[in-house]
Amino acid sequence: MLDFEKGTGLIPAIAQDYQTGEVLMLAYINRASWERTLETGEVHYWSRSRQELWHKGGTSGHVQKVKEIRVDCDRDTVLFRIEQVGGAACHTGHRSCFFNVVTEQGLKETGEKVFDPAEVYGK
Amino acid sequence: MLDFEKGTGLIPAIAQDYQTGEVLMLAYINRASWERTLETGEVHYWSRSRQELWHKGGTSGHVQKVKEIRVDCDRDTVLFRIEQVGGAACHTGHRSCFFNVVTEQGLKETGEKVFDPAEVYGK
Repeated sequence: MLDFEKGTGLIPAIAQDYQTGEVLMLAYINRASWERTLETGEVHYWSRSRQELWHKGGTSGHVQKVKEIRVDCDRDTVLFRIEQVGGAACHTGHRSCFFNVVTEQGLKETGEKVFDPAEVYGK
Repeated sequence: MLDFEKGTGLIPAIAQDYQTGEVLMLAYINRASWERTLETGEVHYWSRSRQELWHKGGTSGHVQKVKEIRVDCDRDTVLFRIEQVGGAACHTGHRSCFFNVVTEQGLKETGEKVFDPAEVYGK
């Protein structure tokens, strides 16, 4: 169903709020995370930094419940349409990871934080 | 502003309809395509298959006019919020490249085609 053979075996996966259409984050999946996501109905990525299966929200409780999955024309990108439990997808506490807007003066941070990372993850 | 040093020098870029929020496609940019996009206000990607700068819509006329650009927390993914001239982002003629929905029976194609690829690109 997906072309994991191309490139590094990893496929970019976009998480989008299924109700508002807001793009929340992009991470990567391998075959194991893809299968685990289908089995559980909660998004699992592959953490490139930790090199391990990453159950999104496993630490914070802010899991991503799958509402619909779409695959692109080349079958090498996935769009997870999800419910974001806890309201924030980003580890910074922002609702979306895309909180930096490009302006003439450089990047400008927008959007209020939904949670305080220090409280959720500890210090 | 972007972290092109990580990985292969390419950064995934999501194109999203700035009015409807629909996710239209994902492709990649390098530093040259990033700069060209900022200069022209029209999205330029890097074509991995052709290994060249890719002015989206250069052939079909279906350019992507930049309305807003967002950068994620790690500065290694870009979200182009755009106006899709011609109404279709996908080379198949679909409005969005994400026209395949995952079902219990496999992938199911959804969404009408906006244009006939044979007419736009020739045969």
